[in-house]
Amino acid sequence: AKARTNRTSTYSNRGMTLEEDLNETNEYYLANKIALIHKKPTPVQIVKVDYPRRSAAVIKEAYFKQASTTDYNGVFKGRYIDFEAKETQNQTSFPLKNFHEHQIKHMEQTLLQHGIAFVILRFSKTEEVFLLEGEHLIHFWERMINGGRKSISKMEIQENGHPIPLGLHPRIDYIKVIEKLYSL
Amino acid sequence: AKARTNRTSTYSNRGMTLEEDLNETNEYYLANKIALIHKKPTPVQIVKVDYPRRSAAVIKEAYFKQASTTDYNGVFKGRYIDFEAKETQNQTSFPLKNFHEHQIKHMEQTLLQHGIAFVILRFSKTEEVFLLEGEHLIHFWERMINGGRKSISKMEIQENGHPIPLGLHPRIDYIKVIEKLYSL
Ligand SMILES: [Mg+2]
Ligand SMILES: [Mg+2]
Repeated sequence: AKARTNRTSTYSNRGMTLEEDLNETNEYYLANKIALIHKKPTPVQIVKVDYPRRSAAVIKEAYFKQASTTDYNGVFKGRYIDFEAKETQNQTSFPLKNFHEHQIKHMEQTLLQHGIAFVILRFSKTEEVFLLEGEHLIHFWERMINGGRKSISKMEIQENGHPIPLGLHPRIDYIKVIEKLYSL
Repeated sequence: AKARTNRTSTYSNRGMTLEEDLNETNEYYLANKIALIHKKPTPVQIVKVDYPRRSAAVIKEAYFKQASTTDYNGVFKGRYIDFEAKETQNQTSFPLKNFHEHQIKHMEQTLLQHGIAFVILRFSKTEEVFLLEGEHLIHFWERMINGGRKSISKMEIQENGHPIPLGLHPRIDYIKVIEKLYSL
């Protein structure tokens, strides 16, 4: 809380989660016809449903399922866009345990189909946000698999990724980075 | 059941639902690196979750939410693919009540972003499957909104849509139709 009162940035997001910021950003893109990106629903295994008379069905027993894809996808200028968003409290590196094997696999499959795959990484303490292309994440993941470090250092993210300046509207303008990177 | 025993097609799908056929098809595309298409999870509003000791969280109260998009999306040769799949027991027309306003809206938004939007329609009794491009569905939807008929006649589907022959592997090869239609 102390750090927040010391903040000078006009566009501090005042405690919004990364997901909330991205939802706002995606709504902005939709309203302004810039891109169409949605967060996928949380996958749930439904076991028991009650159908009370004259009211909506109630799910009485269900379990969270492991997602088989990343969380966000959609379209920008005809191109397929696919990403995952993660934040960390760490200040010097981004732990790879935030990712799951199947998400990395899904990114590889996206790239194979010439989709645009990336991650949005936030260092929560400093509110710094980076876009890191899927190819780089896969590289760091494989380094870990081959016995290397279990995180990406902040310097590696700064060197390989792209900072996304925080804004008021949209809050995290990642499409601007994509537009430039892929000359769209 | 009687109709089924009279069937002559080798590739009759023997009672699989359209969703099962499409899941099999999408798995085939994935395994053969042809396309990456997933069905989105059913959106659920979670109200109450129990966290029993030493076991997985159990969702104890939840409700089905209206989906804000179509059911399937993904990527083929870099292009964004988005579709909804519906079947009818009708033999002479496809009722538009199978679709929801928000799905039509989502298709319009997809087309605006130069994504590829369509529907896969199955006449269950005859097991005929058609791909109808989003532009056409939107046209028939607007005709209804403007006081016209509340369905698409089978003849209109035959004239404006594209038949998808049933196969064994993949069962419903809709990507072949898309590849040709969009010269991909
Ligand atoms: Mg996630
Ligand atoms: Mg549906």
